[in-house]
Formats: sequence, structure tokens, C-alpha cells
Amino acid sequence: MPPQSTLDIQAARARASFDPDALHRVLLNGSKDPAMRRRITEILEQNPSFDKGASPYQSRAQQIERGLHLAKALFEVVDKHDLDYIEYLEALFASDTPMGLNLHEIAFTPVIQSQGSDEQQEEWLPRCYNHEILGCYLQPFRFVAYRLDRWIGALGILSTHGVVQARLMLGGKDYGPHLFIVQLRSEKDHSLMPGIQAGEIGPKVHGAMASVDNGWARFNHVRVPRSHMLSRFAQVDPVDGGRFIKPPHSKLSYGGMIFIRSQMIGNLSWRLAKAVTISIRYLHMRRQFADPELKPGEPQHGIEKQVITYPAVYMRVIPQLANCIVFMTMGKDMANLYHSMSAQLASGDTALLAETHAVSSGLKTYVSSGVVDGTEVVRRAMGGHGFLASSGVGRIFATELPSATILNLQVARAALKSFRAFLTAANPADARARLTPSTAYLASLATASSLPLAPPSSADGWLDLAYLQRLLSLRAALCVARLAAQLDSGRKFGELSWECVEVSAATVEAFIAARMGEALLHEGGVLREGVGAAEGEVLKNVVTFFLLHRVSCALPSLLEFGILAPPAPPSLAKLGRSVANSPLEQLRLALDKLAREILPERVGLTDAFGFSDWELDSVAGLHSGGVYEAMLSKAQADEQLNIGDKAEQERLYREYIRPILERGRRLNGRNADGAERDSKL
Amino acid sequence: MPPQSTLDIQAARARASFDPDALHRVLLNGSKDPAMRRRITEILEQNPSFDKGASPYQSRAQQIERGLHLAKALFEVVDKHDLDYIEYLEALFASDTPMGLNLHEIAFTPVIQSQGSDEQQEEWLPRCYNHEILGCYLQPFRFVAYRLDRWIGALGILSTHGVVQARLMLGGKDYGPHLFIVQLRSEKDHSLMPGIQAGEIGPKVHGAMASVDNGWARFNHVRVPRSHMLSRFAQVDPVDGGRFIKPPHSKLSYGGMIFIRSQMIGNLSWRLAKAVTISIRYLHMRRQFADPELKPGEPQHGIEKQVITYPAVYMRVIPQLANCIVFMTMGKDMANLYHSMSAQLASGDTALLAETHAVSSGLKTYVSSGVVDGTEVVRRAMGGHGFLASSGVGRIFATELPSATILNLQVARAALKSFRAFLTAANPADARARLTPSTAYLASLATASSLPLAPPSSADGWLDLAYLQRLLSLRAALCVARLAAQLDSGRKFGELSWECVEVSAATVEAFIAARMGEALLHEGGVLREGVGAAEGEVLKNVVTFFLLHRVSCALPSLLEFGILAPPAPPSLAKLGRSVANSPLEQLRLALDKLAREILPERVGLTDAFGFSDWELDSVAGLHSGGVYEAMLSKAQADEQLNIGDKAEQERLYREYIRPILERGRRLNGRNADGAERDSKL
Repeated sequence: MPPQSTLDIQAARARASFDPDALHRVLLNGSKDPAMRRRITEILEQNPSFDKGASPYQSRAQQIERGLHLAKALFEVVDKHDLDYIEYLEALFASDTPMGLNLHEIAFTPVIQSQGSDEQQEEWLPRCYNHEILGCYLQPFRFVAYRLDRWIGALGILSTHGVVQARLMLGGKDYGPHLFIVQLRSEKDHSLMPGIQAGEIGPKVHGAMASVDNGWARFNHVRVPRSHMLSRFAQVDPVDGGRFIKPPHSKLSYGGMIFIRSQMIGNLSWRLAKAVTISIRYLHMRRQFADPELKPGEPQHGIEKQVITYPAVYMRVIPQLANCIVFMTMGKDMANLYHSMSAQLASGDTALLAETHAVSSGLKTYVSSGVVDGTEVVRRAMGGHGFLASSGVGRIFATELPSATILNLQVARAALKSFRAFLTAANPADARARLTPSTAYLASLATASSLPLAPPSSADGWLDLAYLQRLLSLRAALCVARLAAQLDSGRKFGELSWECVEVSAATVEAFIAARMGEALLHEGGVLREGVGAAEGEVLKNVVTFFLLHRVSCALPSLLEFGILAPPAPPSLAKLGRSVANSPLEQLRLALDKLAREILPERVGLTDAFGFSDWELDSVAGLHSGGVYEAMLSKAQADEQLNIGDKAEQERLYREYIRPILERGRRLNGRNADGAERDSKL
Repeated sequence: MPPQSTLDIQAARARASFDPDALHRVLLNGSKDPAMRRRITEILEQNPSFDKGASPYQSRAQQIERGLHLAKALFEVVDKHDLDYIEYLEALFASDTPMGLNLHEIAFTPVIQSQGSDEQQEEWLPRCYNHEILGCYLQPFRFVAYRLDRWIGALGILSTHGVVQARLMLGGKDYGPHLFIVQLRSEKDHSLMPGIQAGEIGPKVHGAMASVDNGWARFNHVRVPRSHMLSRFAQVDPVDGGRFIKPPHSKLSYGGMIFIRSQMIGNLSWRLAKAVTISIRYLHMRRQFADPELKPGEPQHGIEKQVITYPAVYMRVIPQLANCIVFMTMGKDMANLYHSMSAQLASGDTALLAETHAVSSGLKTYVSSGVVDGTEVVRRAMGGHGFLASSGVGRIFATELPSATILNLQVARAALKSFRAFLTAANPADARARLTPSTAYLASLATASSLPLAPPSSADGWLDLAYLQRLLSLRAALCVARLAAQLDSGRKFGELSWECVEVSAATVEAFIAARMGEALLHEGGVLREGVGAAEGEVLKNVVTFFLLHRVSCALPSLLEFGILAPPAPPSLAKLGRSVANSPLEQLRLALDKLAREILPERVGLTDAFGFSDWELDSVAGLHSGGVYEAMLSKAQADEQLNIGDKAEQERLYREYIRPILERGRRLNGRNADGAERDSKL
């Protein structure tokens, strides 16, 4: 008979109402080919170079070497299996070990692709694609400055070249930051080029990204040829010792950053999905505490409950599951927006640039912190076992920690600009027509009749997507309105950075609320192509849960802004009673009810993410269960790697433990060899 | 001239209005002797065994050995400097490396102290104190059960003995969990005793506690003599094959757990203080972005601002600074309560047991999660540099992560019981008189006239401690009242575990609000003995900030319960304006104003925590600044430890990097040795 945990996970899997494979295709649709993805991971899975088991035991130096070894092994795989560039990138990310090479692919090459002139692209891109050079991205960097600001990935050991963001100075005038290709190391022997000092910065917190060589650098009178300034947009004309040729739009050079951000949103969602898969599977296998309210003879009496059935557990985990699916969808949405913008830019049209910049800043901030925090939430939900490295969730948190960049000020500033433009427009209809997807929430100001809105009359009323979207739109609009009023009352923008945190989150949530219906579920009222009815139903529940959960988190503002009214103050005699029957309590009941509806779908949803056991690399999240057996057998199998072989363990005893115990016996005036006492037992 | 960061930290230090040494004595008063503490850390600082620099580079096996080495070195220090037991404990914690030995001192020995009979104490305690045996604490543990539930510290390698919590079965009847001393390993050769299997579980997330040997174990027909059941309270009379003698109070066996918890509260506060010291010092040294609103010619134009001056930074960091001081005080309060209870228990009086249990559960839950989350908040505030292991904050987060245990259900259950007793009391005056410090907030129900309370008429009105305490008391009482009403409406306690999270936090915050004035600032209206006027003033600001910050976080409930009224719903025409002038906006202004008042005191406050550079072990938080220089020189000094010496680095290049680059050149049809291209530059 299989272990209980296997029976539990099988039973949970059987409860899903939809086909996980079909949903997997829906989730990947428009971003990746599921068959390709599977083929690549299978290739790596069978290659011992890509085994991940030893790394938690390794020293920093061993992990650095492991990263370099993986990079080399990867190109051997490319050559052996004749992978194309897309397949190679999939293999790089599937290797699940961030290494210097990642920076070449996500930062160095894309910047040249988007910011290099046609001639520069022709010169440099073949060298990038074939890895004749290896690059990194130094941003923002101060030539000659002593202070070391950023730790540049792949700079410590690997890179031959870097794209450096530095101020362009011409004739004493500062033309602001521009991008330059700088050779860092000799192509002959990899020694640092003249005038460049660089080194590895040492371990990062939590042993994170131990295989990435982050570097510091100092440049001293490094000359960069004019032809190395990336000049798709801005250029320097060599006449008169250099004349600046302005780009057609001031933010065109953001293209590279926008690409990196837009890629990250999708990638981050899949990182969270890994953590959520492990945690949810484990929480179905973990049983703890029998229901104390059951009497002997009742079914389940004395049987420990699956931990996932506790509200304090599922109310922490389901929001993260919903985040995965919403963030995946927004990632695809963002990638589409980026590609539309790029295509326009190629023909000189900058219409989408500001919108793409605003959306990518907002989503990046929101998704990255959501993913980092969410990973930790689902790890903690696992209790003690989540604290084992072999459970695999801690690694994801540590790796993604630096992804959590905060661009709240940019987001708030853009929102403020749109708000003022909307309000001061001579023609309101025109102003409404000019709203973009990221500012569409402002329309709620024009259409709202009077506040507070009437609350739904029942728990089910809270499940109306349009109502939830309206709440989130009004809250975003009034958040920005408050910021504008604060500025109007004489406070400076710089003093309001704390307030910008909520402004940023509120506008992003309003944007997501507006986009989700369209992006995922329906197009003109019907299910999106390829989405079956059963998959559509579960997706709708997940999206509704996401929005309702965000509304519940936004209650402070919804109440403070008067968008919703609080219940009538209770007479103290009735105490909690009136509160417990209020519309806000109905909201919480609706959230719980929806969570319980999603409950039987959860393992199916994690299956739909489509990770293999090798990809998850977790003893706690195995597809077929057997979690306790796997934990124990891994601990036993790895013993030598962990604490050394028997002889080594005996040495530790002799050298350290025995002297302590002998000292104790001496102090207590006993026979120092301990023999006497054992024999008494 | 010293580096800018040194000038900045010196200037910040000079701004403090009080004497940090005097405040240091106040903070330690009643818990530790500052001179003893200093002497111990100085002894360790000078002993190379206690150098902490290498550990971030080490493999798991090296870190295990390091922990054992430290334990042995510690006893050498004890013998050499003739340390007493208190001094030895101080040295153990000051070594700043959690190791198996900690469990002996914080779990094994104290349990025998509190739960062993006089005879048992006489037999076992001398062996514990002199480390003739080394112990661990297995709780809760299932004999014979296969499932491995907990990872027991010091069980993997170190322990000779364990206190095991297991169910006492007599004649087929289950008498619930009791504690037994079980010998785990031979005192002769440290081999596992018959019937016991055990092993090390492997690395934990984030490389945390890598020097602690956490273990799994299986017991198979292990016989434990009757005399090994800890029997200060419950006993087994050998008559008739065993007869159970009931303890005088059902929760007497919680004494051990309560001790561990009460110790942890104080210890955790000092861990957070370390993180806060590093972060706040660094944030004074770090400068980023000039004020864009300044014009050329204005002072500070073009000069980058200290990062600490940004509201989005200080509004994250100051709450953590306030937490340190409040949690330290509550830790001392808790220790006093524990000692009072212990003294009573020794004479059979159990009056304080329930209160001590409730307070310790609530505070442990609240403080541990506050410390873990707060450590991460102050690390993130440091930006990229907080991501370096050498900045030292990540290590604190990782180490304390498992401290965050959640006892919300117990706390909520106790609160509910007190609430119902208070409400149903025949005589209200009697009921009020019976309130304990942890339930005193319920009195707010009796004294409150009508809700909503009138808000303060100005920002300064929000600084009234009694008003803040009243808000937090009412919110706690109504939180519990709502829970009671939810249960009355037919929901089960088990379904309300999510709701218990806020109940728990709310009751703890009400308790802290009531205790803080008394515990820290005044006694009968005057400053506590030994607290100077300047120190008293800054402490009062910190405590006020703490309470006001908690009130601002509690706004959702304060509004929903009708304790505070939201501003009148704005007409949409006025948009944010009415909101921006509301009493709630005044609250935020008051919070910001108070934060700015604390601003010049911050470095002084971190100095008052009294950590030496060796204790902080951080390049980012050095007492005398020079942060960038320290980071670079550490990276350079540790290069060999980090990535190997020059020959090793050349090997990495030859073996991994060169083949990748040569492949690239081949694919692009170039000279594979790279010589040609360098020479062109």
C-alpha cells in the first residue's frame, strides 16, 4: 500500500473538475510551446551536469565553479542536440541555476538589439549570439567615481564586454546617461583591460545566486571609441570634436530597461508557480491535528486533518495561487505590449513608449514584490518542513529577492500627470477617449454618481467582477486625487514617497482588474480560443478570487475615501454582533466561500503549471507524494556530502565532542571515559 | 580627510539629544550587566576561534565543524577566564553562531530545572551544568511513529541525551503528553543507543543555522525507566504496574515552554536591534539622488541626499527601531512575570500560570513575526548593499526565521474565554477587578460611552498616549466580540483560524499599549529610576511612535468597527481634497512629524544598543563609517576564500570560459585564439 501522503495527493488530484494539460496549454499559449519546453527539460534531466542535488552543501568557490561548468555544459547540449536560440534560452532558464551567462542573455544582448544602430547590430549581434563575447550590463555606473554602487552580474569573472550606462559629456556639457559598449577583458587571456579594475564581491545573503559572479569595477581613464556609443536613437556627430544629435523622444533609451522588465514579469510568475506547486502539494500531504469538535464515532474522528483545509493556511496560499495565474497573464500582456511598441519604434513611431514605460514600471514593482513576498508566504505555510533546503522553496525566495525593485515614484508621477491632464481637459469626452489601458481607471471619476456605493446585498453579490473592478478603479483614482491634493496643499513630491507606495499599488491593481477579463477569459463575451468550458470556469473563479482578495486588502482606503460605507457604529451592548452581519463581513464570507470552491481544484491547478519533479527539485512537492519517505531517504543518501563519512564523523567526535564531555565528567569527579555510566542502563 | 560616509555618521551621531551610554544602561537595566556584557564580547573578539569572517564562504560540512570547534573553544574560554554560568551563557550567545549547544542551554537544562522533581534535579542538573551530558528537546515526538515531524536541534550529531515529550500510556489509557529523559548516545563512544536511529537532516533554507545539527530520529521499543519521567508535578506511582498521580493544575507542564518563550522575546528584540543598527547607520552613510526641486545656487543643490531622509525609507525603518525598544521592554516584563510565576509555583500556587501562558503565547507570536519581518524590512531598505552577505542583515533574518511560530489560536481562545467571563459576570465591578494585565483592554467596553470616538482636532492631538491606548483597547475588545458573534452565529472555531490572526495581534497590541507606559517611562507619574530626562524624552517619542504607527495600521478595523468615523464621503468634484484634510490625514501627518522628531536621534539610539563592530559583523554598519572602503577591502581581502587564488582563477578560465569563447569564434569563422581582436584596440 502506498504511503498516506501518496493517497492524499492522488485523491486531491482526482477532484479537479478540468483537464490540467488543457489548462497548461492555455497558460503557455502565446508565450511558449509546451512540447518544446518539455523536450528541453527532459534533455537536461538526463544530463548529470544539470543535477542540482549537491549545491546546498557546497562552498562558495564550488558554486562559482558549478555555474561555469553549467555554462560550458549548456553549449555542449546546444551542439549535441542542435538547439536553436529559443531552445537554448529555454535550457538556460530550465537549468534553474542563475549564472553569469543569464546576464548576457537578459541584459547585454537585448540592449544592443534595441539600442544599437543597424551597423552596430550587424557588428555585435553575431558575436553575442554565438558567445564569442560574453557581456554584462553596468547601470548606472560612474566612471572614475570611487563609490561602488551596484553589483554587476557576470562582471566578477565571466564577462569580456559590458554595456555601460554613463553620462555623455561633450565640450563640458552633460547630455545625461547613454549606453556604451566597453571591452572589459582581453579576448586573448581574459586579463582586465588597461585602466579597468574589477573583482568579485563575495557571497550574497541567503547563499543566493552563489553561481553568479557579481562584480565591482573601477574605471580609470578608459577610452571608449565614439563608435561604441549605442546610437540607434541619440548620436554623436564627430564634427567639431563631437556634436550631440538628439533622439526623437527623450525616453527612447528606456527601451532596453523596458525589455528586461517586461521579460521579468512573465518569468517571475513562473518562479512563484514553482513555489506554489511545492507548497500546495505538500499541504495536501501534511496532516496535523484531528478536529477537536468531532465526537467518537463520527467519521474522521481522531484522524488528523490535511493542513490545507485550515482557513489560516488556505487563506494565505490561495491568494498566491491566484497571483501566479494573474501574473502569468499580465506577463504575456506586457510582452505583447512591448512587441507592439518595438515594431512601432522601428518605424520611428513613439506613440506607445510612454504607456509601455508606465505599465512595465508599475507591473514590475507590483509583480516582483508580490512574487518575493508570496514565495515566503507559501514557504512559511509549510511549517517546519519549509525550513529544509531540500523542500526547495527557500531557494526561490532567495534567488528572486533582488528582483523586487521599487519604482513607486515613477508610477505615481505618471499617474499624477494623467490625472491632471484628465481633470483639466477642456472636453471631457475627448479626455476619456485619450485614456490608455493603464489610465482607464480615471474614467470611474466621470461615471461615478455618488459615494458611497451601495454594497452588495449578499455574499454572492461580492463576486460581480464589474463591481469589483469599479471599486478598484475608484480607489486608484481617489488615491491619485489625494496625492494631487497633498501637493496642492504645499507638500513636496519628495516628501510624499511613502504615500506613493499605495498610489502605485492602487493604480496597478485597477489596471490588472481592467485587463484580466479581456486578457484571459472572454473576447467579446465568449471564452478565449482554446479555453474549454471547465478550464474557463476555474480561471474565472481564480480571477474573481484575486480581485475580491485585493478589494478586501484595499478596505482601509475604500472606507476612508467613502467609496464604501462602514456599518453603522454598533451600540456597545450589541458588541460584535452588528459588525458580524455587516456587508464587510459578507465580503469575507464570499472570499472564504470562493476559496472553498477553489479548494478541490488546487492540486489540478499546480499540475497545470506543468513542472516535472526535476524542475521542482523538492522532496516536499513530489508529483506522486511519498513526502516523508523522500525526506528521510534524501537525508540518508546525502549524509556524506552533508557531514562527512563515518570516519570523518568519528573525527568530529574525538576532536570536539569527547573533550567537552570528558571535561564535564572531570568537573563532576567522575570516571572520564564514560564507560561506567552506560553500563548501568 | 575621512571619507564622506564617516563624516555623515559622525554628524548624525552628534545630533543626538541624549547620552547613548545612559540609555544603554536603561535598556539593559533589570536584564544584563553592561560591563559584564562588554567584558565577555571583548574576550571573544580577541580569540581567533570566534572570528566570523569565513563562514559565508564555507560548505555545510565546514560549518558543522565550525560549530563544534566553537563549542569546544567556548569551554576553553570558560576555563581560562574562570567564567561563571551567566557569563558562559553570555559568551555562548555573543559567539553569534547558533550551534547544537544552544539547545542544551535554552531547552534541555531549563526543562529539567522547571519540571524535574527535587531528586531528579539533584541527579541531573550538575551533569547539565558541567556538560557531562549534552541534551536536546524532542517535542512533540511520536515513539515508533514513522512520520518525521520536527527537526530537533543538536540531535543530529551532538546530544547524548534528550528530553522527549511523549504520551504517557498506563494500562492502555492515554494520559497525554509528558516529559522523559532519554539517553540517545553512549557516553563511552557516542554511538546511538539500542533501538534509536537518528541522523542529520541536511542544510536548511538560506544556509541558516548551518552549524546546528538538526536531527531526525526513530525510536523502536526504547524502554525509559519510570524514574526518567520528569515528575515535579505529574507522577507515576509504581503500584499496580503504574498509577497516575495528577498534577495540581493541568497546564503545569507548560512551564518549560513558557520559559523558552519568555527568554526568546528578549533575545529576539536584541537580534532585531542588530539589524536595525546596521541598517540605520548605513542609511545615514548612503547618499542617492540630489533633490530635483532645488535650484542651482540653493544650498545642497546637486548634492545627493542621505537615503535616510526619504520618507519611503524612514517610514519603513523607524517602526522597526521602535519595535526594538518596545520588544526589549516587553521581554524584561515577560521575564519578570515568568520569575514571579516560578516562585509561586515552587510553593504550589498556580494563580499566575494561565496569565503567564497567555501573555507568553501572545507576545511570542507577535514579537517573533515582528522581528523576522522587521529584519527583512530594514535589509530591503538598504537596497543593493543589503543583498551582500557581508552587510550582515540577511544572516539575522535567516537565523530567526524559524523563531516565527504562530500561536494565534491559543491567544484567541484565551481572549474569548476572558471576554465571555467578563460579559456574563453577575457583578460588573467584580469582573473589572478580575481583569489581568493581558485582559485589561476589556474594561474599555465598560467605560466607553458611545462610538465613534471624537477624533483629535489637530495632528498633535494624535500624540496623546491615553487616546491611542483607548483606540487599541476598543479595537481589541471589538475584535474579540466579533469572533464571539461569529461563533454565536453558528460558525465553528476551526473555521475561524484566519480571523484569529487579527484577534491575536489586536489583543497583544492592546496589552503592549497598557504596559509600555508603566514598564518604561513612568511609575506613579515620574520617570523610572535611572532614566534621565533626555533619555526619558526620546523613549517617550519612540513609544508614542510605536502606538501611533499601530493605530495607523489598525485603521481598517477602527473604521469598520465604528471606533473612528471615516471623513464625510467626498463629492467627486472635490476629489481628494476632503480626504487630504481629514482627521485620518492628520494622523498620517502626526506620524510623519514624530518620525522627523526621532530623525536626529536615530544613530544615537543605535549606539545605545551598544553593539561593537565585531558583534555586528557588518561592513555596512561600522561604527565609524567608511562603508564603501570597507566593502571593497573586504571583497579584495577575501578573494582567495571566495573564488580561489590566481592559479585557481586561471584554471576556471582555461577549463570553462575559454572553451565557450573559442566555440563562439569558431562559429563566427574567426581566429580562435582571440589575439587578433585585442590588438586592434
